[in-house]
Amino acid sequence: VNESHGRETLKVAIAGLGTVGGGTVKLLQANADLLERRCGRAIAITAVADRYRRDRGFAVDGYAWYDDAVEMARGADADVVVELIGGADGAAKDVCETAIACGRHVVTANKALLAHHGMALAKMAEARGVTLAYEASVAGGIPIIKALREGLAGNRRSRVFGILNGTCNYILTTMRETGREFDAVLAEAQALGYAEANPGLDVDGIDAAHKLAILATVAFGCTLDLDAVHVEGIRHVSPVDIAFAQELGYRIKLLGIASLTDGRVERRVHPCMVPVSAPVAQVDGVFNAVVADGDFVDRIVQEGRGAGERPTASAVVADIADIACGRRVPTFGIPVEHLRALPALPMSQHRGCYYVRLMVLDKPGVLADVTSILRDNAVSMEAVLQRARAPGEAVPVVMTTHETEELAMTRSLEQIGQLAASIEPPRMIRIEPF
Amino acid sequence: VNESHGRETLKVAIAGLGTVGGGTVKLLQANADLLERRCGRAIAITAVADRYRRDRGFAVDGYAWYDDAVEMARGADADVVVELIGGADGAAKDVCETAIACGRHVVTANKALLAHHGMALAKMAEARGVTLAYEASVAGGIPIIKALREGLAGNRRSRVFGILNGTCNYILTTMRETGREFDAVLAEAQALGYAEANPGLDVDGIDAAHKLAILATVAFGCTLDLDAVHVEGIRHVSPVDIAFAQELGYRIKLLGIASLTDGRVERRVHPCMVPVSAPVAQVDGVFNAVVADGDFVDRIVQEGRGAGERPTASAVVADIADIACGRRVPTFGIPVEHLRALPALPMSQHRGCYYVRLMVLDKPGVLADVTSILRDNAVSMEAVLQRARAPGEAVPVVMTTHETEELAMTRSLEQIGQLAASIEPPRMIRIEPF
Repeated sequence: VNESHGRETLKVAIAGLGTVGGGTVKLLQANADLLERRCGRAIAITAVADRYRRDRGFAVDGYAWYDDAVEMARGADADVVVELIGGADGAAKDVCETAIACGRHVVTANKALLAHHGMALAKMAEARGVTLAYEASVAGGIPIIKALREGLAGNRRSRVFGILNGTCNYILTTMRETGREFDAVLAEAQALGYAEANPGLDVDGIDAAHKLAILATVAFGCTLDLDAVHVEGIRHVSPVDIAFAQELGYRIKLLGIASLTDGRVERRVHPCMVPVSAPVAQVDGVFNAVVADGDFVDRIVQEGRGAGERPTASAVVADIADIACGRRVPTFGIPVEHLRALPALPMSQHRGCYYVRLMVLDKPGVLADVTSILRDNAVSMEAVLQRARAPGEAVPVVMTTHETEELAMTRSLEQIGQLAASIEPPRMIRIEPF
Repeated sequence: VNESHGRETLKVAIAGLGTVGGGTVKLLQANADLLERRCGRAIAITAVADRYRRDRGFAVDGYAWYDDAVEMARGADADVVVELIGGADGAAKDVCETAIACGRHVVTANKALLAHHGMALAKMAEARGVTLAYEASVAGGIPIIKALREGLAGNRRSRVFGILNGTCNYILTTMRETGREFDAVLAEAQALGYAEANPGLDVDGIDAAHKLAILATVAFGCTLDLDAVHVEGIRHVSPVDIAFAQELGYRIKLLGIASLTDGRVERRVHPCMVPVSAPVAQVDGVFNAVVADGDFVDRIVQEGRGAGERPTASAVVADIADIACGRRVPTFGIPVEHLRALPALPMSQHRGCYYVRLMVLDKPGVLADVTSILRDNAVSMEAVLQRARAPGEAVPVVMTTHETEELAMTRSLEQIGQLAASIEPPRMIRIEPF
C-alpha cells in the first residue's frame, strides 16, 4: 500500500542543535528501527549545523558538520532540512528559503517564522514542489495541525482555541496554587527553566499569538494575519483576581481563541475566566490543550506537552515521517492562492461576558455612580461582589456582566476609572463559557 | 504541493444508509465545496446501496441505487466503496472483499469486521494496492488512528487506553449521578436511543474489545488478536461500588487498556477505578477519550464524541479525503507481513491494585478469616472500610490492595467466597493509577 516501502534512505539535515535540535537527533537515533519499519525506508541524519561545537550528550560523528546553517541548507546531501534555530528572521528564515530554493523539503518548529513569513514561505514551497511542515510549531507534541488539516478535513470549522503557551499556564497554575504574585512566580519559573530570561514572548502573549495566527489559517483557510490577533499577556493577572475567579467558579487561563462567524474571523489571545468544569480549566502546569469545533465532529479536545526537547522532537519527526512516506498536504491545508482574505472582527465588536474588578474608596454613592455608568453604556450586570467593607479605605468591587459588546465595556471602564473614588484602573477579564 | 490538485473527481459508493451512512451522505453533500478546496478535486457520491428504499431526509436521486451492496461494490462507477452496513461477517465482509478485489479503496466504520478479519482484509488491500481505512471504527469523531499511525510515528508506544464505548460511559455516569441500578439506567438509555435493544455488544465490553484490539495493533505493530483481549462488561457494577469509589477518590470507568511491556502485549477491557483527577475520570456521558503514551511525546489525550451520525461521518470523510489527496499509510501503520506476533501477557499475570467488596455476615472473626486468606496469597492490603455494623446482618466490607498479581487476587476471592459468612460472591474492580 505504501509506495515508499523499499525506497531509498531519506536524508535529513538539522539546523540548530539546541533543545529541540538535540531532541530530534536523539529521537532519530534512538528510534531509527521503528521509523524504518513505519516508513518503509530508513531516515538518516546526514548533516548538522550549529554555531558552536561542543559536547551535547549525543554523538554527531558521521554527520557532515556546518558552522553555517545556510551553507548546509544549500550544500548538504539532504532531502529534508529541519530548521530548529528559531526567531522570526535572520538565519532561520535564510535556512528555510535556501532549502526550498534548492528543492529540499523543510520541517520547522518555528512559530514566529511561520506567523511572520508563513504565507511567503508556503508560496515558495508550493512553487518549488516541496513540503513546508510545522507540526512542532503549535502545541508541541500534540498533533493538532494534522488533526485540523486531515482528521477534521470534512468539517466546516467554526472555532479553535486553547492553552497554547505552557509558560503562562505554569505561572497561572502556580499563582493559583500558592496565592503568590506574578513577579515572584515568574522569577521561580525562570530559575526552573520554564521561562526564558527574556520572558516577554511568553508572558506578553506573543508566542501564543504566533500559534493562534497559524491555527486560524489552518482551521478556516483564511490568510495568515498576525497583526489581526488581539494580544494581551498575563502580567496584570493578580492573586486577587485569581481568588475571585475561584469564588465565582472559574479558573483564569491564557487562551488563544480563533472563531469564524458570518464570514468574519476573530483572533484573540488574552487571559480568560473559564468555568472549572470546562475541559481547558483542568489542564494545569506546562501542559497545552487545543479544542476544535466543527459542524460534523462537534468538538475534539487534545491535551499534551506543549514544549520541551522530547515532545517537540516527536512532532518534528512526525513531519519527517510524512515526507518519508510521501504524504503531502498544502502547507495551510489548501494552496496559498486559495486562502481567503476574510475580514477580521475587530476587538471593539467582540461580544461576551466580562469580569470587572474595581478598587474604590468605600464611600456612599460609589456603587450608584458605577452602576449608572454601566447602564448608560447599556452594559447589563449579572452579579456584584463586595465583601470587605472599611469606610474610607480601598476595597475591591467585583462585577460580572451579561453578554455585551467590548466597546461598551471599554467605555464604561474608562468612565469608571475617572471617578474620584476609583483609586486604580479597573481590571477586566473576559469570561468564556467553553 | 498537492499532486491531487486539478485531478478528476473522486467517485464514492456508499453501502448502508443507516445512521452513519446517512451522516456521510449529508456531510458529502453539505461540505462538498470545502472538500473540493481541501482535496484539490471534487468528491462525488455516485452510488448508494441499502436493502430498503424509503425517505431518509436526504436526497439520493442522481446516485445509482443498489438493493444489493455487494453488487454495488462490484459494479458501481466508484473509486472508493464506503462500508457502513456493520457486523463482523455477512454483507459487510462481502462488500469489503469485493471492493478490494475490484481494485477499489475501502473506507469502513466497522470495528467488529476489522477486529475479526482486519488482518486478512489488510493483506488483500496491500496485495491489490488499495487503501483500507477505518478511522471511524474507533472513538467516532476523534482522529486517533491518524494520531497514532502518523502523529506519533516517531514514538515507541508503550500504552494506549481509553473510554471506547459511549453507551457504557453514559450508563456509568448516570448511575453515579442518580444512584440508580444498572438495569434501570440501561432501560432508560435504550429508551433514549443511547443503547441498542440488544445491548450485549456494548455493556458486555465486546465493542470496546473490538476497538482495543485495533488500537493495540496500530500502537504496537503487533498482530491483531481479538481473542487475546480480556473482556469484562459493566453489568456487575453496582451503586454500592460507585458510592465506595466516590468515597475513596475514584470514578468507575469501563476502560480498554493495551500496553507493551518487555515485549509482551497486555490487552484488557474491564471496569476500572481511576483517580478523580485522571484525565479519563472527567470524561462523562457519551463522550470517548483516548490516551496514548510514547517515549518522546510522553502522553497525549484526545476527547470527543465516540459515536453518532455526524461525528462518525466526520471520521469516514477524513479517510475519504486522505484517499482523494493520495495520502497513504499501510492499514495498521506497517505492512501486514511485518506485524509481529508478540506474546500476550495473560490476565493471570497482570499486576495492579484492586478494590474488593465483600458482603459478609457481621460475625466475630470474619475479618480475621479474610485477612489471613489474603496474607496466605501474599496480597498486601492498603485500606479497609467497614462502616455499617449490624451484628448478624449482611454488611459490605471494602478493601483496597497494594500492587499484586491477578492470580493471587483470583485465588483469594475464591477462598473468601467459600467462607460461611460470605453471603454473595466477592466483587473486584481493578484500580488504575492513570
